[in-house]
Amino acid sequence: MAKEVSNREENYAQWYNNLVIKAGLAENSAVRGCMVIKPYGYALWEKMQADLDRRFKATGHVNAYFPIFIPKSFLSREAEHVEGFAKECAVVTHHRLMANPNGSGVVIDPSARLEEELVIRPTSETIIWNTYRDWIKSYRDLPVLCNQWANVVRWEMRTRLFLRTAEFLWQEGHTAHAHKEEAIEETNRIVEIYASFAREMMALPVIVGRKSDSERFAGAVDTLCIEAMMQDGKALQAGTSHFLGQNFAKAFDVKYASKEGVLEYVWATSWGVSTRLVGALVMAHGDNNGLILPPKLAPIQVVMVPIYKGDEERSMILSQMEKIKKELEAKDISVKVDDRDHLRSGFKFAEWELMGVPLRVAMGPRDLEQGTVEFARRDTLEKIACPQSELVHRIPVLLSEIQENIYKKALDFREKNTHKVDNYDEFKERIEEGGFFLCHWDGTAETEEKIKNETKATIRVIPFERDDEEGVCMVSGKPSAQRVVFSRAY
Amino acid sequence: MAKEVSNREENYAQWYNNLVIKAGLAENSAVRGCMVIKPYGYALWEKMQADLDRRFKATGHVNAYFPIFIPKSFLSREAEHVEGFAKECAVVTHHRLMANPNGSGVVIDPSARLEEELVIRPTSETIIWNTYRDWIKSYRDLPVLCNQWANVVRWEMRTRLFLRTAEFLWQEGHTAHAHKEEAIEETNRIVEIYASFAREMMALPVIVGRKSDSERFAGAVDTLCIEAMMQDGKALQAGTSHFLGQNFAKAFDVKYASKEGVLEYVWATSWGVSTRLVGALVMAHGDNNGLILPPKLAPIQVVMVPIYKGDEERSMILSQMEKIKKELEAKDISVKVDDRDHLRSGFKFAEWELMGVPLRVAMGPRDLEQGTVEFARRDTLEKIACPQSELVHRIPVLLSEIQENIYKKALDFREKNTHKVDNYDEFKERIEEGGFFLCHWDGTAETEEKIKNETKATIRVIPFERDDEEGVCMVSGKPSAQRVVFSRAY
Repeated sequence: MAKEVSNREENYAQWYNNLVIKAGLAENSAVRGCMVIKPYGYALWEKMQADLDRRFKATGHVNAYFPIFIPKSFLSREAEHVEGFAKECAVVTHHRLMANPNGSGVVIDPSARLEEELVIRPTSETIIWNTYRDWIKSYRDLPVLCNQWANVVRWEMRTRLFLRTAEFLWQEGHTAHAHKEEAIEETNRIVEIYASFAREMMALPVIVGRKSDSERFAGAVDTLCIEAMMQDGKALQAGTSHFLGQNFAKAFDVKYASKEGVLEYVWATSWGVSTRLVGALVMAHGDNNGLILPPKLAPIQVVMVPIYKGDEERSMILSQMEKIKKELEAKDISVKVDDRDHLRSGFKFAEWELMGVPLRVAMGPRDLEQGTVEFARRDTLEKIACPQSELVHRIPVLLSEIQENIYKKALDFREKNTHKVDNYDEFKERIEEGGFFLCHWDGTAETEEKIKNETKATIRVIPFERDDEEGVCMVSGKPSAQRVVFSRAY
Repeated sequence: MAKEVSNREENYAQWYNNLVIKAGLAENSAVRGCMVIKPYGYALWEKMQADLDRRFKATGHVNAYFPIFIPKSFLSREAEHVEGFAKECAVVTHHRLMANPNGSGVVIDPSARLEEELVIRPTSETIIWNTYRDWIKSYRDLPVLCNQWANVVRWEMRTRLFLRTAEFLWQEGHTAHAHKEEAIEETNRIVEIYASFAREMMALPVIVGRKSDSERFAGAVDTLCIEAMMQDGKALQAGTSHFLGQNFAKAFDVKYASKEGVLEYVWATSWGVSTRLVGALVMAHGDNNGLILPPKLAPIQVVMVPIYKGDEERSMILSQMEKIKKELEAKDISVKVDDRDHLRSGFKFAEWELMGVPLRVAMGPRDLEQGTVEFARRDTLEKIACPQSELVHRIPVLLSEIQENIYKKALDFREKNTHKVDNYDEFKERIEEGGFFLCHWDGTAETEEKIKNETKATIRVIPFERDDEEGVCMVSGKPSAQRVVFSRAY
């Protein structure tokens, strides 16, 4: 089974797609551009959701739910927003089907045309700020710190499982504040939550910073982001946090009475991460044997595979495994005993490698005799003998080690593939190899555009963390305050 | 604030709507028929979700996610299903908007018409069974036990917050089995999960049983349900579990190779509960002071209100409360300390009653001196003095008592309003008072229809639990094997 995964080095895109499908994470559906998230992929998303939700709630946020439909006219209220989001979207025009007068199937009932078309939310700023107008009257009603877990639709022409699909799942936070500083603080707080989540849970080293003007969210004053490097050297935007200024408050007339009784426009943020993160997980860590899942997000952390001949050995080993499983579960470790009888253990080993289970425990008749087991680490493929008596203590330690090691490997990879380049010709040449390029840039959209047209690389992030090294733009020679990250991107 | 809630006895519908809005559970949105689920209402739904999800997983189910869009032609595949669901639904016809050539706003781009219209799922049997065709090849692939948490849209003409909205949230389970008996077992297993959930968590006594043919799900062979009585004596269907036979397997050509190598159609079930349950919770337990939430689902189980004059008293009482709060939280009890300084405690009491918080703890300067507090139970409005030293032990006990008492009250109410009636004239008269009527029925759709037309009452459920009392139909005089539950319904 594992052999069927394409080679990562030969065709990265095909390797990715193959892996997502073979590991049972997702598949294409009958509806163009929409995927089915299969149980194993959804279990990953659920673990991400649970952890993010905990972080949001710990910082005072609450969940709510707003309609999936947005009246068409709402999209036009904010001038930049309509440019960004009113284009490729699903439009509902009718609310009824009827039997086809020709006899077969159903057709639209022409009398059921909606007065105003409804758009399926591509993002919910407009419908939410239209609601906030009624919620916010006084400074005492602020801040409003809502998040929503929802599906959204953007009619993408070229789709790829998890990375870019017409429908996807995400969370979108929408907060309202009395003061500009508070909204900016919130924008920062969230991008830091995203960064911690990516690093601690996904084992994904990310660069935190700001988008350039041309990469900003449509309707935002400022967009912060976390950016990660995939194993082909391309960048993937893994989460964004927007300071929206008073743009949406003005578009939807949301004002509050201050302590001093003055009516003021409200300040806003919005922020989100999506099922795209599942794709990032695959692309950042996987290898030619399959997925490599960080233990903290793996739906199955430990798989136990019995090796036996005959029913008696089988039942002795399985009963020992079930005992160990219970002890591990008491420590909140998720364990699967692979008791399938019609498959060889070699096949099972390959399958669980494909699925990226962090730790495999094999136990055969000799192990039973000698009181041992054999571990196999998914990240290093290393095999380790271990006395059964130490097993329950060793496993949590090993899982932590694996979590750390996966992060370290990804960080090493990023560092090895990050280059300071000061010469545009060199840049044009080396961008072909992939990777992040730390370059000086003059801050203009013109230069950015030129670079994009000539190299397909864009400014992924203007990093917060930087040496205070001034320089000159590699293209225009004009002064530059800091290096920014250029890369080709997903 | 509490005074503003309408009187339940005068106008039940208005009382309900008023309560949902005043307690901040939900409100109408700018989109006709769609509601905004506000944070407090969503918190209730989240608690329901968490408990149901745990029960589903404990019985071997996994979550997945299928597209929101259903190709129009899919709906016509199953003959009864199309009758039931292809009518009032949201139809997507275009995938792009463009700037209005007249200059203002956006309009549909006529060139972006979809080849086949997409319907927003009113329920997902069709898209899921179209997917299962690829998942299921052999008996080894069965059973498939998937659940999905999702939004669905049914274009209802008359909507009511939570009870009937165009868009709502729900879970829908869709399982596939090799054998008929297994599918029937699953249908039963789930309706029992729903019943236990309703009784244990929602404190909602429900009757478990079967729907009559005319109330069955469109496309099902058999529909099981849990039915509850609201405080106006009307019935509310709180969950359904359908045995679908091979209807969808045949419609989507889903076959498996049996152990013997024979190709057989797969057997199916589907089942769901929705945000409607939040409405049921309000209607089953609330009173003229507001919500009465069962402790097991209350987002805030204990609210602590300080009573003080001046900053010194305030800070002493609050610091004591924070200490108690920490101790309770360690026992997994959710506590809110209402430290708002601009509101009188009387106002706060009324507000927390409106919000249905099960237990209120008040503490004033004299309590501080004497080491006491005052409890107020939301269910009975009873006040109880308690030494602070006993507080942390008393609260879990009180919460259990409240949970039980709310259930008992609802059960008593139902029993008092359930009548055995054998005479159709008496039935016609008494149905006006509301309540459940246990009557003999001849099993025909004609009689059911006649009763419905003449009294607006329908058969809510053919209960599993029954006396083995045979009789004659109150309308036709024909033989009847058991009494069934007639009622007007939501």
